[in-house]
Amino acid sequence: MKFGIIGNLDKSELIEAVTLLVKKLGDSGMQFVVEEGIARLLGDGIFAARQIGKREDCARNVDMVVALGGDGTILSAARLVGTLDTPILGVNLGKLGFLAEVAPGELQKALGEIISGKYRIEKRLVLEATISQIPDKVMYGLNDLVVDKSRSSRLIDVEVYINDAFAVSYRADGLIISTPTGSTAYALSSGGPIVVPTSNVIGITPISPHTLSGRPLVVPDTDTIRIVTKDPAYEVLISVDGQEEAVLKPPVEVRIKRASHTVNLVKRAGGSYYEVLRAKLLWGKDARGA
Amino acid sequence: MKFGIIGNLDKSELIEAVTLLVKKLGDSGMQFVVEEGIARLLGDGIFAARQIGKREDCARNVDMVVALGGDGTILSAARLVGTLDTPILGVNLGKLGFLAEVAPGELQKALGEIISGKYRIEKRLVLEATISQIPDKVMYGLNDLVVDKSRSSRLIDVEVYINDAFAVSYRADGLIISTPTGSTAYALSSGGPIVVPTSNVIGITPISPHTLSGRPLVVPDTDTIRIVTKDPAYEVLISVDGQEEAVLKPPVEVRIKRASHTVNLVKRAGGSYYEVLRAKLLWGKDARGA
Amino acid sequence: MKFGIIGNLDKSELIEAVTLLVKKLGDSGMQFVVEEGIARLLGDGIFAARQIGKREDCARNVDMVVALGGDGTILSAARLVGTLDTPILGVNLGKLGFLAEVAPGELQKALGEIISGKYRIEKRLVLEATISQIPDKVMYGLNDLVVDKSRSSRLIDVEVYINDAFAVSYRADGLIISTPTGSTAYALSSGGPIVVPTSNVIGITPISPHTLSGRPLVVPDTDTIRIVTKDPAYEVLISVDGQEEAVLKPPVEVRIKRASHTVNLVKRAGGSYYEVLRAKLLWGKDARGA
Amino acid sequence: MKFGIIGNLDKSELIEAVTLLVKKLGDSGMQFVVEEGIARLLGDGIFAARQIGKREDCARNVDMVVALGGDGTILSAARLVGTLDTPILGVNLGKLGFLAEVAPGELQKALGEIISGKYRIEKRLVLEATISQIPDKVMYGLNDLVVDKSRSSRLIDVEVYINDAFAVSYRADGLIISTPTGSTAYALSSGGPIVVPTSNVIGITPISPHTLSGRPLVVPDTDTIRIVTKDPAYEVLISVDGQEEAVLKPPVEVRIKRASHTVNLVKRAGGSYYEVLRAKLLWGKDARGA
Repeated sequence: MKFGIIGNLDKSELIEAVTLLVKKLGDSGMQFVVEEGIARLLGDGIFAARQIGKREDCARNVDMVVALGGDGTILSAARLVGTLDTPILGVNLGKLGFLAEVAPGELQKALGEIISGKYRIEKRLVLEATISQIPDKVMYGLNDLVVDKSRSSRLIDVEVYINDAFAVSYRADGLIISTPTGSTAYALSSGGPIVVPTSNVIGITPISPHTLSGRPLVVPDTDTIRIVTKDPAYEVLISVDGQEEAVLKPPVEVRIKRASHTVNLVKRAGGSYYEVLRAKLLWGKDARGA
Repeated sequence: MKFGIIGNLDKSELIEAVTLLVKKLGDSGMQFVVEEGIARLLGDGIFAARQIGKREDCARNVDMVVALGGDGTILSAARLVGTLDTPILGVNLGKLGFLAEVAPGELQKALGEIISGKYRIEKRLVLEATISQIPDKVMYGLNDLVVDKSRSSRLIDVEVYINDAFAVSYRADGLIISTPTGSTAYALSSGGPIVVPTSNVIGITPISPHTLSGRPLVVPDTDTIRIVTKDPAYEVLISVDGQEEAVLKPPVEVRIKRASHTVNLVKRAGGSYYEVLRAKLLWGKDARGA
Repeated sequence: MKFGIIGNLDKSELIEAVTLLVKKLGDSGMQFVVEEGIARLLGDGIFAARQIGKREDCARNVDMVVALGGDGTILSAARLVGTLDTPILGVNLGKLGFLAEVAPGELQKALGEIISGKYRIEKRLVLEATISQIPDKVMYGLNDLVVDKSRSSRLIDVEVYINDAFAVSYRADGLIISTPTGSTAYALSSGGPIVVPTSNVIGITPISPHTLSGRPLVVPDTDTIRIVTKDPAYEVLISVDGQEEAVLKPPVEVRIKRASHTVNLVKRAGGSYYEVLRAKLLWGKDARGA
Repeated sequence: MKFGIIGNLDKSELIEAVTLLVKKLGDSGMQFVVEEGIARLLGDGIFAARQIGKREDCARNVDMVVALGGDGTILSAARLVGTLDTPILGVNLGKLGFLAEVAPGELQKALGEIISGKYRIEKRLVLEATISQIPDKVMYGLNDLVVDKSRSSRLIDVEVYINDAFAVSYRADGLIISTPTGSTAYALSSGGPIVVPTSNVIGITPISPHTLSGRPLVVPDTDTIRIVTKDPAYEVLISVDGQEEAVLKPPVEVRIKRASHTVNLVKRAGGSYYEVLRAKLLWGKDARGA
């Protein structure tokens, strides 16, 4: 079994976690490739040349990607893996995240389980999007695709079509198309529901719509969503998983559907999505017992 | 082909609609049975004895139930049909509804299409619920199951478990478990998302929770939901589709999952769910053009 | 200076707090009258006969009422004091509250300050309401007046008039008219804003309105609000500060304005409303540091 | 009596409205000064030289400013008038607005009333703001002051202090400080309450906060609000009434309080704020009668 190892180089906990990780992998006779930035951070002579690779290499020809950092690092890992089905194990450095499965203190134990095959794969729905003006570019999002007003302080008019039927239009700061995974990211900030990751639906949530009658919409993941903006006077910004993809002058049309691949997260036995929700979002918490 | 005909006797448009309906069915050589209340309303001698039945009979041994009235009448039809798969055609008397498919003015045309087989069936997810204290009673809901504080002015504490894992607890007026169909009913009033009827999910929405951190939850329809209230000092009211089912003294446990049957709504070609949403809820409407 | 002492007899901390309180008052040469229920609780022979009174007596001919319990106890104290201007000192037994100023552990110190005049009075806006069908009864609310659907599961139609101009109507579970003090009570559960207690405004918040376009309204406290329900088929329940006042058959008209008196809360130097908000409601809290 | 006349040159209805306006003023022996852009639009020789001025001149040494356009035009008029107390009459060209009082069709009649003194002045609360980095610049807002994340796709951390006490902090897209007038502008889009313009309060509303526990706050207009952002890695954009004021690198501190002047809107007898709310925002509208 071969592991690719990537990480957030800004996290002070990275060195210790990687050191522990590669020792455990080595002791267990596993192969691995570490991204060169991490290798540099750990110092000369630690790794053999074949154990060091470019970031992209850590997601290719490996059996599992270990991503050390926060949710952002795991989103990056998902971008690297792309349409390959390589499972991703998230190791949380710093604060609690939604996507990482293992805290640094549990790493040793978790690796043992994983090496002996005691884990399950959770297949996460991915969005596939194309933009009319850039027909050759296919974008994939594990969290969301956002169309917004870019740097303008003017609202934009966005029209939403579902399976080519007009659904709704908003004058708003923007619009979020989110996977269940992304329901706790930007969609949550805009008032969207919490959607359990294994749900087969896509969320459509306006950002600060100038109306009293905005409301998040949930559609089956078999639907195709089309977002249209028309006014050439105002550029729109399209971003996927928080990374800017394009700033475009309307008319712009974005087409979104469920991708045919999934992002495959490594899950340990006994973890609880609801526990993370309550701990991280203080969901449902009041101070009745305070 | 045999039709069962039920209706809301309080609607002034009922007589004209039924008259038109039975004429068209008769002319087309179709059989039908009309509920006795409607027969009485239309007067003696209009129907043969075999064409009149109790309300329940209108849903048995027929190929389609025609329900004339509002959304409430169609919910009643769904209760009558129960676990049978008999399709229901809703005819809207009065204001626009979410469940009725045909306006009185379109009845003639729509019947022609249906008789000649030009229609499709939309299978709607149904909730199946049992209450710990009444183990033998199985309840089915096309819209929702609501647990609330009954006549008390005190909030109740409700705990929610998903697949036996604790998810969240609320101090609230109550809690709504809703199907996609029910997302535009009571769940909408409590801030839930609009869920397209063909989505395979169930919504869990608190009613006036005394916390800043309440948020609707959407789970896969393969999940089992358990609602628990414990404080014996305050009775809770359980209702399904707006009809009171039980007032009980806690501890009360309600178990909800997707039923194995669906409610089968007759749909004409070309209807748009989004058009109804926009027309009925003024969804996304602002007065930018006013 | 003479103190009236009332309390929530169900709180286990009551005996110790009252014991400490009367000792301090006695040592400082202050007079007091304790409600008879508390006296009974503390046992025979502790108080002289003139130091024991009915609950009402504890709010009359005294210079300050000390209310020991939770927010409910202080709301009761406000009802007892009525249109008298007697200041109320809330002592919190058990969990943190919005209205109580002093925790049991601070009681000794706080009393010292108060006896030596080191405190300020915060004047809280009070609602004055009359109901068309009970013209002689004037109701006062420190938190809110609620009109709701009583035990019915049907929504009610409520119309709101401001200074006799029609403002809005809702089909809803009910409607909340709240003071700034009450903005963190039931109005909060229905999505109302947090209104700082010294604001001169009144909030009008629908409870679960069946529309996408409901929104809380804030009006100047010089406005007169009239709530009208018309449908005689459904009784409405009117409650003030969580205590049921009347169940009435419409047409019902409720007239609400700011009362000419205030409820006068004793405040110590250095307390922070925002600290209570954050601690009790976890306001603005996320888990970014977790 | 002398009138200053400004307008939105992009509105096709402008020429006709101004023509009618100056004829009526001339016939009634009133003086006026028209902004030069409008004069140019109407053509040579229509106005005497002394009747034409720069935009600023139309707000100085006049008894009333007539602003023809939408809400944006009236916000501009308010900026021109500044701390002078000159009343502003808004004439609505195109769609319904919140600030304009007169529709083009009513202009003749309304002017007659105004010339004969039949109108009232509604004093609207104005925000006064200063930024730590630009101490000499004082900004005034009739609607709102917004601090937001500028062009970054990263959230910003904003801290709010009221009268120098820490109130709340948000990780959010930004924060809106709004007058009652501005409660139906951007604050509405972010879930703020509708605040009647004559209320003496200021609203504080987070924009897409990444927390479940955000909630709008309403404070007395006697409070001083301080907004602090600290992270130098992300620029913040500060705008007032939708016009960009500054893009700054934190640490940035903005200080906001009620200005000592008001914006004075000319109001005709019989207008209803609630009628505008219902017509423009479809407030409380459902389709129960549809």
